[in-house]
Amino acid sequence: MAVTLKELADVIGAELAGDAGISISGAGTLEQAKAGEVTFLANPKYLKQLETTAASAVIVAPSVSMDRLPLLKAKDPYYAFALAVRHLHGTRKHSFTGVHPRATVDSTATIGEGTTLYPGVYVGPRVRVGRDCVLHANVVVYEDCVIGDRVIIHANTSIGPDGFGFATNGGIHHKIPQIGNVVIEDDVEIGSNCSIDRAALGSTVIGKGSKLNDLIAIGHNTKMGPHCLIVSQVGIAGSANLGHHVTLAGQVGVAGHIEVGDNVTVGAQAGVTNSVPEQSVLLGSPAMPIRQARRVAAVFVQLPELQDRVKKLEQSVEELSKDDEPAA
Amino acid sequence: MAVTLKELADVIGAELAGDAGISISGAGTLEQAKAGEVTFLANPKYLKQLETTAASAVIVAPSVSMDRLPLLKAKDPYYAFALAVRHLHGTRKHSFTGVHPRATVDSTATIGEGTTLYPGVYVGPRVRVGRDCVLHANVVVYEDCVIGDRVIIHANTSIGPDGFGFATNGGIHHKIPQIGNVVIEDDVEIGSNCSIDRAALGSTVIGKGSKLNDLIAIGHNTKMGPHCLIVSQVGIAGSANLGHHVTLAGQVGVAGHIEVGDNVTVGAQAGVTNSVPEQSVLLGSPAMPIRQARRVAAVFVQLPELQDRVKKLEQSVEELSKDDEPAA
Amino acid sequence: MAVTLKELADVIGAELAGDAGISISGAGTLEQAKAGEVTFLANPKYLKQLETTAASAVIVAPSVSMDRLPLLKAKDPYYAFALAVRHLHGTRKHSFTGVHPRATVDSTATIGEGTTLYPGVYVGPRVRVGRDCVLHANVVVYEDCVIGDRVIIHANTSIGPDGFGFATNGGIHHKIPQIGNVVIEDDVEIGSNCSIDRAALGSTVIGKGSKLNDLIAIGHNTKMGPHCLIVSQVGIAGSANLGHHVTLAGQVGVAGHIEVGDNVTVGAQAGVTNSVPEQSVLLGSPAMPIRQARRVAAVFVQLPELQDRVKKLEQSVEELSKDDEPAA
Repeated sequence: MAVTLKELADVIGAELAGDAGISISGAGTLEQAKAGEVTFLANPKYLKQLETTAASAVIVAPSVSMDRLPLLKAKDPYYAFALAVRHLHGTRKHSFTGVHPRATVDSTATIGEGTTLYPGVYVGPRVRVGRDCVLHANVVVYEDCVIGDRVIIHANTSIGPDGFGFATNGGIHHKIPQIGNVVIEDDVEIGSNCSIDRAALGSTVIGKGSKLNDLIAIGHNTKMGPHCLIVSQVGIAGSANLGHHVTLAGQVGVAGHIEVGDNVTVGAQAGVTNSVPEQSVLLGSPAMPIRQARRVAAVFVQLPELQDRVKKLEQSVEELSKDDEPAA
Repeated sequence: MAVTLKELADVIGAELAGDAGISISGAGTLEQAKAGEVTFLANPKYLKQLETTAASAVIVAPSVSMDRLPLLKAKDPYYAFALAVRHLHGTRKHSFTGVHPRATVDSTATIGEGTTLYPGVYVGPRVRVGRDCVLHANVVVYEDCVIGDRVIIHANTSIGPDGFGFATNGGIHHKIPQIGNVVIEDDVEIGSNCSIDRAALGSTVIGKGSKLNDLIAIGHNTKMGPHCLIVSQVGIAGSANLGHHVTLAGQVGVAGHIEVGDNVTVGAQAGVTNSVPEQSVLLGSPAMPIRQARRVAAVFVQLPELQDRVKKLEQSVEELSKDDEPAA
Repeated sequence: MAVTLKELADVIGAELAGDAGISISGAGTLEQAKAGEVTFLANPKYLKQLETTAASAVIVAPSVSMDRLPLLKAKDPYYAFALAVRHLHGTRKHSFTGVHPRATVDSTATIGEGTTLYPGVYVGPRVRVGRDCVLHANVVVYEDCVIGDRVIIHANTSIGPDGFGFATNGGIHHKIPQIGNVVIEDDVEIGSNCSIDRAALGSTVIGKGSKLNDLIAIGHNTKMGPHCLIVSQVGIAGSANLGHHVTLAGQVGVAGHIEVGDNVTVGAQAGVTNSVPEQSVLLGSPAMPIRQARRVAAVFVQLPELQDRVKKLEQSVEELSKDDEPAA
């Protein structure tokens, strides 16, 4: 779809500086955009690329000025770019509507209007899927789970398999029936190949508007608040409680039965083993406040040198001690 | 299903203290159980919740006494609770029996009596699946694999994909045909989205009664003994040998070609790079005995302070050395 | 299939020392091979097993001599063994040809000759799959992705789900349509339960001849060069650039927007957070040159002892300082 720069400016709420009539038919990065495409500058680090980009227009912060290209000035250039991409390219077009004949929906499940189920999807007994959802190919939703409106779940993800609950007696692990469910609230997106375990009793909850990437494991009875960002390969053990706007980077592990406060951010590969107050920014395994983690890491990578310094000190002190001995 | 407290006590082998006639229709945690439900107390830490729980009866250790609620005294309260949950709620009821018409079973495979295959399951040539198994939706079992009796495999798990075997020659990785298989012994449960690779030659084995959670990767030719507990996102490289009753917490990595002894326990995110004697309890990356790992971690998080102390020592020693110099 | 040792020697390009007429019908490891089977010795560490193996012939390096068994001398015994296994056992035989009736291929997708699609495979709009590929059961390929020739993708893997792209505005995460695709070049093999995200714009690329094991997450717009080896549970964030012949061991994490040079090797569980020059061998989190990482680890596991040494030094220095004080 091609639009004038004027139309695009209006749609994304930007102030236009330059030729309003030029035609824009696509979007790209500073480096990859071609003539006829719009790009964006959100990070001042890439400012120099404004001189070389082949794009025909750039979305920038209000403070940026230049003559080379028409500018679309927006308070939040990245968000404005997102709107531009959506306007130019739209969202995914499905080649069929509703429940694909090769999706399997239990007769007791309900599927909301406007919801698309791809081939190989399985929806179990008594599941409720809301409106305008997309369940991509081979997504599995176990019995009794509840999925809100406008939820997107990517291929091969499993919602509601049994939590890991066993009572060990006499060396044998006896299964505790997992009779709870999973509740995915509105506007959640879950990536591919994830596993969200059903609660032993009660519900495992993914809060409204949270976004999960791929290969994520969520244990039984865990509650994630709204608007969290969970990157690929994160694992959250059972009965953890996450607040809202929690961000967990790739491969983070969160222990069970702990509280992670609102707006907490955790860096990649960290291990969160204790409850964390809101607003914390953590890194490391065990996870520490990021300033501390960075100082620890700086010493850590120089541990052999630190050991050498201790050794040298020991020699010096020994010599000093000898000198210090009273002459016989 | 509702039962009298007397019946429940008999079923779970508990001694009843209180009104035998009250009706129990469900089970819940101390916090979440409602009137008419039974709960349990296994960890003395939660003793105070006995005063506030809404449950109508509590399973406790024989030493616990109280008047507020009827008690079911059992030697192992958690195990007794597991039995109670099973009696009250039963195990999963499938909405169909046997092989679902949308499961695909090769004509040369055999499926035992009482086994349930969900939609999207694929069972390859010459596979044998035992009795009373459940393969949830979209489980894939490659050719020649063997699955015992009463095995549960959750959605989207892959049993028997090729092991990672390549001979690199002239910069090209040449595939070594993986002609072995996977053997899953009786009473194993495997979570969702796991990958158990087939052996190059011989078998990859998951021992009787072992329980695996989600997103676990098991390399080719690895042997896991009976009754292991493997938490989500664990990775075990090829040709590792695990004993019986090994417990690996979340995100643990185990190197290939090593021995992990019986009853070994490894804490979350640890990296086991060498063989480990039986009964060891390990933590950390590289994995260490847990006492050592905790002491190491305690110093680790204070590395900047340790470095400061060394710096101060260096200054003191330098001063002392000056003082110590013979007066000219 | 049974062949004479002479035939086998010719096929694998080895020099025969011993009875050319004996019949070989299979292949096995030194420990597991039976009479009538060929084995190999690539690592001198296992030299003693030549005395005890039940195999009928052994592929060895040219320098090895022995009388007990017929030898097949080859410059690269492991590669020669791979050729032998392939000759004796062949590659996987499928029990059907072409697109299985239970695979779902969009009408606008193209599937090359000789390509096998297993049940439950979903191939979306405008996808191109090359010749002689195998997509195992329940593999999902999203719209517009391109798969080369002779590519193998194992069960439950997802190619082309949306990259993790959101513009956060007013606390809400707004989805940025992911309008790029994934390009899998020729001769790639991808294990089971992997997720390769489509690019936001442009392509995520897996280079020719690269081999990936299981449960691997590749972020949007990442480019992997040819002939890489990526072990299970590796995660590579978005917009990373890997050279050729990069090897990443199990559970490694690679940050986004960095460059990993040609022939780089990274040890298990490492975290690569910065760009890395070619030929580097790294270990640890954060990843360091392997020599440094090993020295750091050696001190790390003895941190409590190092702390004790510092404490002792502090005491000694304090005493020395007292002695050093001028007598009043």
